Amino acid sequence: MGLDKPLLNDISQAVKGHLNLITDVSGVRVGQVTIDDGDVHTGVTAILPHPGNLFREKVPAASYVINGFGKSVGLVQIDELGTIETPILLTNTFGVGTAINALTRRLLAENPEIGDTTSTVNPIVAECNDGDVSNIRRMRLTEAAVNQALDTVGRQFLEGAVGAGRGMMCYDLKGGIGSSSRLVTVDRQHRYTVGSLVMTNYGFLDDLVINGLPIGKPLARLIAADKTKEENGSIITILATDAPLNARQLKRLAKRATVGITRTGGFIGNGSGEIVFAFSTTNLIHHFSKNQFDVVTRFNDNQIDLFFRATAAAVDEAVLSSLVHATSIVDRKGRRRLSLIDAAEQLKEEQPEYTEM
Amino acid sequence: MGLDKPLLNDISQAVKGHLNLITDVSGVRVGQVTIDDGDVHTGVTAILPHPGNLFREKVPAASYVINGFGKSVGLVQIDELGTIETPILLTNTFGVGTAINALTRRLLAENPEIGDTTSTVNPIVAECNDGDVSNIRRMRLTEAAVNQALDTVGRQFLEGAVGAGRGMMCYDLKGGIGSSSRLVTVDRQHRYTVGSLVMTNYGFLDDLVINGLPIGKPLARLIAADKTKEENGSIITILATDAPLNARQLKRLAKRATVGITRTGGFIGNGSGEIVFAFSTTNLIHHFSKNQFDVVTRFNDNQIDLFFRATAAAVDEAVLSSLVHATSIVDRKGRRRLSLIDAAEQLKEEQPEYTEM
Amino acid sequence: MGLDKPLLNDISQAVKGHLNLITDVSGVRVGQVTIDDGDVHTGVTAILPHPGNLFREKVPAASYVINGFGKSVGLVQIDELGTIETPILLTNTFGVGTAINALTRRLLAENPEIGDTTSTVNPIVAECNDGDVSNIRRMRLTEAAVNQALDTVGRQFLEGAVGAGRGMMCYDLKGGIGSSSRLVTVDRQHRYTVGSLVMTNYGFLDDLVINGLPIGKPLARLIAADKTKEENGSIITILATDAPLNARQLKRLAKRATVGITRTGGFIGNGSGEIVFAFSTTNLIHHFSKNQFDVVTRFNDNQIDLFFRATAAAVDEAVLSSLVHATSIVDRKGRRRLSLIDAAEQLKEEQPEYTEM
Amino acid sequence: MGLDKPLLNDISQAVKGHLNLITDVSGVRVGQVTIDDGDVHTGVTAILPHPGNLFREKVPAASYVINGFGKSVGLVQIDELGTIETPILLTNTFGVGTAINALTRRLLAENPEIGDTTSTVNPIVAECNDGDVSNIRRMRLTEAAVNQALDTVGRQFLEGAVGAGRGMMCYDLKGGIGSSSRLVTVDRQHRYTVGSLVMTNYGFLDDLVINGLPIGKPLARLIAADKTKEENGSIITILATDAPLNARQLKRLAKRATVGITRTGGFIGNGSGEIVFAFSTTNLIHHFSKNQFDVVTRFNDNQIDLFFRATAAAVDEAVLSSLVHATSIVDRKGRRRLSLIDAAEQLKEEQPEYTEM
Repeated sequence: MGLDKPLLNDISQAVKGHLNLITDVSGVRVGQVTIDDGDVHTGVTAILPHPGNLFREKVPAASYVINGFGKSVGLVQIDELGTIETPILLTNTFGVGTAINALTRRLLAENPEIGDTTSTVNPIVAECNDGDVSNIRRMRLTEAAVNQALDTVGRQFLEGAVGAGRGMMCYDLKGGIGSSSRLVTVDRQHRYTVGSLVMTNYGFLDDLVINGLPIGKPLARLIAADKTKEENGSIITILATDAPLNARQLKRLAKRATVGITRTGGFIGNGSGEIVFAFSTTNLIHHFSKNQFDVVTRFNDNQIDLFFRATAAAVDEAVLSSLVHATSIVDRKGRRRLSLIDAAEQLKEEQPEYTEM
Repeated sequence: MGLDKPLLNDISQAVKGHLNLITDVSGVRVGQVTIDDGDVHTGVTAILPHPGNLFREKVPAASYVINGFGKSVGLVQIDELGTIETPILLTNTFGVGTAINALTRRLLAENPEIGDTTSTVNPIVAECNDGDVSNIRRMRLTEAAVNQALDTVGRQFLEGAVGAGRGMMCYDLKGGIGSSSRLVTVDRQHRYTVGSLVMTNYGFLDDLVINGLPIGKPLARLIAADKTKEENGSIITILATDAPLNARQLKRLAKRATVGITRTGGFIGNGSGEIVFAFSTTNLIHHFSKNQFDVVTRFNDNQIDLFFRATAAAVDEAVLSSLVHATSIVDRKGRRRLSLIDAAEQLKEEQPEYTEM
Repeated sequence: MGLDKPLLNDISQAVKGHLNLITDVSGVRVGQVTIDDGDVHTGVTAILPHPGNLFREKVPAASYVINGFGKSVGLVQIDELGTIETPILLTNTFGVGTAINALTRRLLAENPEIGDTTSTVNPIVAECNDGDVSNIRRMRLTEAAVNQALDTVGRQFLEGAVGAGRGMMCYDLKGGIGSSSRLVTVDRQHRYTVGSLVMTNYGFLDDLVINGLPIGKPLARLIAADKTKEENGSIITILATDAPLNARQLKRLAKRATVGITRTGGFIGNGSGEIVFAFSTTNLIHHFSKNQFDVVTRFNDNQIDLFFRATAAAVDEAVLSSLVHATSIVDRKGRRRLSLIDAAEQLKEEQPEYTEM
Repeated sequence: MGLDKPLLNDISQAVKGHLNLITDVSGVRVGQVTIDDGDVHTGVTAILPHPGNLFREKVPAASYVINGFGKSVGLVQIDELGTIETPILLTNTFGVGTAINALTRRLLAENPEIGDTTSTVNPIVAECNDGDVSNIRRMRLTEAAVNQALDTVGRQFLEGAVGAGRGMMCYDLKGGIGSSSRLVTVDRQHRYTVGSLVMTNYGFLDDLVINGLPIGKPLARLIAADKTKEENGSIITILATDAPLNARQLKRLAKRATVGITRTGGFIGNGSGEIVFAFSTTNLIHHFSKNQFDVVTRFNDNQIDLFFRATAAAVDEAVLSSLVHATSIVDRKGRRRLSLIDAAEQLKEEQPEYTEM
């Protein structure tokens, strides 16, 4: 649902989709499972680019590495072939192996040809390190949880400290899953949607700026955040659109996620693995094509700024939305980790001069 | 000289260099020639990485393409070998050929071995399209102007609508050359400088944000900027440091220029060629080395955030500095193109409620 | 005209085009000017992707850097936008500036909108260092020569020590321009051409292998090639096709030039700038498009091996063709530099046991 | 052990290491487990860059994607940071998830700090699709097998149809694991080793050339290889050296593996995932460094051709060695898949004119 008010400086055409979620892009579905088990607070979030057989009908896609301190998998083949052929899974860093296994087994079950009469399949799994909050060393993700997330996808889904975002921290506040969308009107006949979903686990509170306000500094004094810890954050961004963008153009789109990510104070820190995946639900690529030639629609780059602007705004809002929807949590060491809302409330109580939020 | 007050949200250690210019990095020199000739308003800006023979003593270097709608030259070899071996020239798009010729002739004169007993040389020339203000079709840059810029380099230099920045427009206001620097204290023994120089020719006024204030929108109403024109902007960024960063690390640094560029409202527009060059003045590479092995200092990436933060702040400030130091100009079509200062003044007069600058 | 006999191990479908030149791709034209002036032996070779207005009707294109020790220009924008919008010029390293100027002036004359009401233009110039044979320090290329090459393009053109290839050396033998083509039959309805043009200036004679025969070693003993000189070679490859390959696919094609280049003994030496440009004459991109959407044909990567094989064979043959068509030359220092044919002849005379060519 | 005779056209200094294996690079160890279980013929091969704690003492490293139709993991972080911090595992495509899990669990056990007080860890797993021979759909690799491979590493190891190479096919013959090494003498004081290990699963028999002889064509007629199958091959290359090459230089080295791979007839087919990993055992990077600065040896690129040549030769020989050491196998469908030796024997019997091997 993103935010219920406009961004102060929304550089897009400023029209949000109906749900203000990535699922405003027709056919896109999201499912999540949250895992709380003792000192483990983690989960899995699954994004389906379309409801059909993804292996047989691949989506044009691109990935972009803003900062490569990360362990996401599947990028090599996306870069070469410009396609995604599985659901996209988000989870914690040490869940990647299990997520690959679950995704592979599922695709094998759905496609008896894979590994027998046709090629193998390229699982897409992205991750952040939630080890600050969760005991990541327990490697607690199960294939059953992945399957449950995939089995329960829908258009509506929760944001904040849920699914793969359960244990994530963003700007030293509780982060997690955020999403938003923007409508793009190219001309009367051509109206498209750009949707974003982020898993936020990056940033330093001191740097946080919301709507131009450097709110991070007073909050940081309040929280006395553990500054000595090395940043091992990350932010994963998924972009979806129904516009007929090809792999080259989707890579350009993916790069513009950077704009949305840094608006709130990010600076692409050394330890922050920042990876973007972008796909289009138009001009699908058929795995078992009878003929070698398709007729497709091609969009001219001349007006692509409309999509770049929508991306920047939708990612910016998704980051804020992950913060706004997150709830405070008690971490693996028993410390209470505040959400933005709780921290702001506390700030208002203790220092009433801060009421600007 | 950058700005004379602090940035509202400076994410670096917030200590500026003595001059607050790229020339705070020891050995770096800048020279400029401005060309006003009828409807031509252009020029050239030269950056010398060090005062010695650059071909014989190359600097470790990297380039990074934020957006490749541009004609800058020299990047292929920088990416392969991780070195810069000539001064860096900035000029207008159609001055690149002449700049290459001037630079080549100069290097040939200084180094009788080039093209005879040793290899050729890789000229570095970066450009923006100043055709909005200047009659770029006249291809007015001369080799003499390039040589004059190179002959008159120094530590002090002007910012704003000078040198290669003479005809550049930034956020629909007069742009040009801006510079800044930051000191980086790694520990007591290790204190370094990061310097930035930008040529700004990008952005839309509507998007402009200064210190968190969306000042662009009221200014855009005032100026009624020519919205229909396609953006053919660009921003070139030069980063210098005396820290012992190698080519891989300098590329990481170069990428963080993005943070500074987008802080004021940029979104990496389709038509905006955004190219970054970064070099270190430490651990020079000898062209005619007697032996194949050097002993050099290597910096561990663990603390590189200090340099990333300095880069973001120094580039952010350099962009603003280019706006603040620019003066209004009458363009090739006789239109007065306002500087930020003049535009803000006019806004205050006409709408006194805007006095926040 | 390539070679008049088949390659021993041609991995393509082994059907050559009518001329066995890059101009077998419909619409492609080549023009050349050779410059011999005292100790200067250089020139320019121009490739026109199609006979129309290239700025207005751009070709889908890609570049690939096999080894970036080189000064070719235009790659940054090709990589971003996937288009070429000017003729492609080949010349010597120190002719690049002049070639850019000539190309820019020509495009300006043909397109009054450039730099006035629309964007600038991205000149494509590729180079090798012919300084071993020619006094490259004289910077002898003129804009007039470039224009003459562009004015005299045609389907027929010479190979060997002509045009930009005049002073080039390949495997320590006389190199220069070579070209070849292959037909690709995808199915009955779809038959395409892949054409290659190379400027060869790379390799060590000791490594030369022709049709599996290590002929280089005995030739090297004969010639007693100057081993102490550092390699400052290069090879530029231009690939053309009428198949509907997009920029991503053309980049894949470009990479396969490597296979053809190394077949004869190349190993991508440090000093060898190896750059590939590939374009398609199908699915042109209109600069002044009235609408933002085209309908285009898309080729499925499943059968792209047909094109990869054609590329490998056409590049392999083009390299050999440059050697076979080259004539011996007296270099800038008065030394006679042998062609492959003359060297083989001499070898046969002196050592009659070598008659295998 | 590579080959026991010289390559016909070895472009290196042609001095092999003592074992002629990758383990000639001091400290490098290899361990393998072969899995034959009904219709499953697969395994795992582990390469240890050095015998110490790799997470604490990382090796400078690079990866290079020749063709990205593949699912290898770990490249994103190698590219960003230039380090490898775990053993490298080779296995089949659907073993990647399990290999990640095994590697992660092992690193967690060895390093209690990971995921608790310090960052996570980046597992390196490379794969080829052995589904032609083995029932890959059974996902048969176990964590126990991975651990056994890691527990039994040594300097001596088998080549051919063993370990991860058990089910691989190369040029339609039995492929698998191959290895070789070359000594590089820079000058009297500086003598280094370059070692290669390949897992070969690529190529078409028709294209095979050995020592210049197109032996593939008669063999293909003999075997009547199943031409209609799409290629889903791959080749993984590991390069090791004790020379002080940094990440940028190692990436250059990795690219030269292409030369060795294509010598025998490869053309970088669409379906062939060709990935290279290169590391140096010199100038290690300490994870828990007390200070931010090291003093390291830097090698000048001027003489790097010595290493490029060694790489090309060592990879070429490793490919041949995988073929020569492989034994024939009965595949998952009961077909006998011939080794090169058995195929050549059969050819000699049936067509005695082929005795040239």
